[in-house]
Amino acid sequence: MKGLFYPRTPTGRASIVPPTPWHYSGELLTFEYRTDSEAVAALLPEGFSLVQEDPGAVAVLWADWQSCGDDFAEILDPVRGQYKEVFFVVRCMFQGKAYSRCVYIWVDKDFAMLRGQHQGYPKKLGSIHMSRPVTLGKAGPRLDVGGTFGATLAAMDRRLAQARFTITGPADRPGFVNGLPMAHNRWMPAIETDGTDSLSEVVTMSGFDGQMGRCFKGDFELELFDSPVEELLDLPIREKIGAYWHEVCVSWRAGTTLSRNNLR
Amino acid sequence: MKGLFYPRTPTGRASIVPPTPWHYSGELLTFEYRTDSEAVAALLPEGFSLVQEDPGAVAVLWADWQSCGDDFAEILDPVRGQYKEVFFVVRCMFQGKAYSRCVYIWVDKDFAMLRGQHQGYPKKLGSIHMSRPVTLGKAGPRLDVGGTFGATLAAMDRRLAQARFTITGPADRPGFVNGLPMAHNRWMPAIETDGTDSLSEVVTMSGFDGQMGRCFKGDFELELFDSPVEELLDLPIREKIGAYWHEVCVSWRAGTTLSRNNLR
Amino acid sequence: MKGLFYPRTPTGRASIVPPTPWHYSGELLTFEYRTDSEAVAALLPEGFSLVQEDPGAVAVLWADWQSCGDDFAEILDPVRGQYKEVFFVVRCMFQGKAYSRCVYIWVDKDFAMLRGQHQGYPKKLGSIHMSRPVTLGKAGPRLDVGGTFGATLAAMDRRLAQARFTITGPADRPGFVNGLPMAHNRWMPAIETDGTDSLSEVVTMSGFDGQMGRCFKGDFELELFDSPVEELLDLPIREKIGAYWHEVCVSWRAGTTLSRNNLR
Amino acid sequence: MKGLFYPRTPTGRASIVPPTPWHYSGELLTFEYRTDSEAVAALLPEGFSLVQEDPGAVAVLWADWQSCGDDFAEILDPVRGQYKEVFFVVRCMFQGKAYSRCVYIWVDKDFAMLRGQHQGYPKKLGSIHMSRPVTLGKAGPRLDVGGTFGATLAAMDRRLAQARFTITGPADRPGFVNGLPMAHNRWMPAIETDGTDSLSEVVTMSGFDGQMGRCFKGDFELELFDSPVEELLDLPIREKIGAYWHEVCVSWRAGTTLSRNNLR
Repeated sequence: MKGLFYPRTPTGRASIVPPTPWHYSGELLTFEYRTDSEAVAALLPEGFSLVQEDPGAVAVLWADWQSCGDDFAEILDPVRGQYKEVFFVVRCMFQGKAYSRCVYIWVDKDFAMLRGQHQGYPKKLGSIHMSRPVTLGKAGPRLDVGGTFGATLAAMDRRLAQARFTITGPADRPGFVNGLPMAHNRWMPAIETDGTDSLSEVVTMSGFDGQMGRCFKGDFELELFDSPVEELLDLPIREKIGAYWHEVCVSWRAGTTLSRNNLR
Repeated sequence: MKGLFYPRTPTGRASIVPPTPWHYSGELLTFEYRTDSEAVAALLPEGFSLVQEDPGAVAVLWADWQSCGDDFAEILDPVRGQYKEVFFVVRCMFQGKAYSRCVYIWVDKDFAMLRGQHQGYPKKLGSIHMSRPVTLGKAGPRLDVGGTFGATLAAMDRRLAQARFTITGPADRPGFVNGLPMAHNRWMPAIETDGTDSLSEVVTMSGFDGQMGRCFKGDFELELFDSPVEELLDLPIREKIGAYWHEVCVSWRAGTTLSRNNLR
Repeated sequence: MKGLFYPRTPTGRASIVPPTPWHYSGELLTFEYRTDSEAVAALLPEGFSLVQEDPGAVAVLWADWQSCGDDFAEILDPVRGQYKEVFFVVRCMFQGKAYSRCVYIWVDKDFAMLRGQHQGYPKKLGSIHMSRPVTLGKAGPRLDVGGTFGATLAAMDRRLAQARFTITGPADRPGFVNGLPMAHNRWMPAIETDGTDSLSEVVTMSGFDGQMGRCFKGDFELELFDSPVEELLDLPIREKIGAYWHEVCVSWRAGTTLSRNNLR
Repeated sequence: MKGLFYPRTPTGRASIVPPTPWHYSGELLTFEYRTDSEAVAALLPEGFSLVQEDPGAVAVLWADWQSCGDDFAEILDPVRGQYKEVFFVVRCMFQGKAYSRCVYIWVDKDFAMLRGQHQGYPKKLGSIHMSRPVTLGKAGPRLDVGGTFGATLAAMDRRLAQARFTITGPADRPGFVNGLPMAHNRWMPAIETDGTDSLSEVVTMSGFDGQMGRCFKGDFELELFDSPVEELLDLPIREKIGAYWHEVCVSWRAGTTLSRNNLR
């Protein structure tokens, strides 16, 4: 039976994700702010703790991706490779080392949802929009001082977040909160659904062949909204840190298991 | 940290699925046909074998569901509880017992995708439509002899399946292929993405408080189409068995692990 | 060239709507309330005036439709015939006669959008959900006293309206605001886009072969939300009138021009 | 009452389209081919005739647009300004002058659908994807020789068209079929729905402040597929002409009525 995730079949052709490596090229908007450090701590599972420096720092990222496997088939059938995502990242300590950690994430395609789940990203579906820079005309920002971008997130027919960003100048790097290797939990509740997990791992991962292209910093506004099935207002914006537009590419092949604790 | 699946949070409110039990009420169209038994065998993983009687039987089901948790919140915010699905079911033997097994499935909401994944259903997203019976007027079939229904499935902007069904009379039960307890594999590939799995289980489950409402049999046509990322044409329709419209309800709380083989 | 609306082609097959008559079967939730009569008056164009009795009455309707042309092709390919809509209706006087008038409306399919435009409905796209009654199980209301329904509307990734309805008993008819023949303006701005219209008509229409099926009244809550591109908060809910769940069917062939004033 | 199209309200805020001028910035893929000239002639209404030179030339364009009104509000809330479209263009003679003419078009947003209808574009909704060029990484083509793009169109859950394009070098202009002022019919069938039109105009329009950015030519493949509600196979690809990737911007304020023939 072939196929990384599912369905597994004789050929693997129907698998919801192609074999690794996976290649990504995208444009991102990163918004960093400080929330209450207890709010970050409350989202860290057992074994994790706050970082010492700036423990309440949060990054919210909008990303407009193209992605593909090693045969580039998705580039020729872009409905299978394009997707957008919004994700909330904090930093944390695990086994004495500092990591970035995604605490909330929405994407708009199924393959991205499952691919991310393999990596421990807690992906839901959402409706995601962000301005694209243009080189001509009035219907979009220029990648230059004064260029102004909008970004929105909705899920379950409710707007969850929206942001504005105006370029003030070039930047060396797009913030610091999402800059560490990721440490994620991969949980699979036992089919007995009794509060235990069949799988409970902490994994870490980084991409390879990553590159940053153009990168700009800027002024921003960020608003979070309530929903009966979200908890974003528990990460209130106490202080703005910074915001960035940046281009990146990265490839991903595999991660590393840091801890395994199958409870059953 | 609360939350059955993910994200796990202090309150569990943001979890993509509410706590079990889950309740379902729906209308289904079931199409049963015979394919080559080797085609079914090719979709069975290690430890599974064909059933002896009618081993090539396949059921394709369209379902229009409402679902909710125990507080019925999704009924009042139906974007969070309504979904449609199409699934292909075969029968198989495991540890000397006969089971039904879902080999392909598409849904149109994220919560259904993850909830099903907990149960071992290999869910992707699709666009799913099926006629609804009406009691008045010309724009829909009556639940009576001659009532004619249409049903379609698309994914990745390609039509994958379509069917027609015309009621010929009442039926006692909606076929036999999907009538056994389910036996599913739950796989989580290791984050090392090296061909091994961190989780590899065979689980079984049945619902409780299930009831069948009105049930009709009928004549049908069923067509399957090709896609570069599906393998439906490997389950060709050699002979029609039967088709049914039926109403059902069921609740689900938990399943049972039949086998666990964490390979790493 | 054949085709009612567009595109017009040699065969008419590609037309966005089939030839009339059009047949509809659906389930509706109707919520009636009183707003300020000046708010209703402000939405009436020249030539229209308020009705004398209860001039501030508004009906908000959620509808889950199946629709088809005279060959019923859409029933067999239901993606082409099923749609949901939400619409706001007021009453008005025109040429000495009382009419119902749709002031805002959202649908979720393109054919419904254009078909409605032919009839003078000012249709936009939205995401629309409403509970469906069930006969079995816990995942939906029964069509009986105590059955509780939810209904929501979103557009442009913002929730615009939501409602709850609980059946208190049978009803003879589903309110009065949407009960008169419709009087709508059909405007086509001049391509010169200079504030004049190439087409400016007042039309009226009613369906034929209409029937009402089961009809229930009940208690309700209705909430309207703000959006930068909507004006629903200008129709504030001052007093609730009543709410209804009802089944209807109707066919539609043609309307009648009441007034024509092509300004150019 | 304010509002260009509908709904017309006291403030105009709820209008489905903002006031003109409208500004557009986008990336396009243009595919030009020859079909049978009779197939083009069959799509021309009364008063139109074929051009003399290359009368069977067709352009199929995929476009990924951002658009906004004069206050740029849509750039900050991009769900209201971004859209994709696919359109088929032929050339024709009207009143002794040569024009381009859109014969089929699909978009993925409601505002684009109605805005286009004002301009005589026969817009339906579709699902549209096209590769975006990237500057980094493997998940997208470079804007350079060898860069390969994919593009697809689906509607009503069926794939209607797909194309591949590989850059072979720079180009001066993106073909010739879509290069003339547009001549479109604007029809509004009479509400009496008796085969007559309340509005029947021929209009022409061009944008202003148009600019072409980067432009590349290339090799291509283009496939058209069947649908019961489309007629694309009546425009068969007899001979390829050329294909282009190009950036454009344009603004639009108004058009000109060439002919008016209100039949009633």
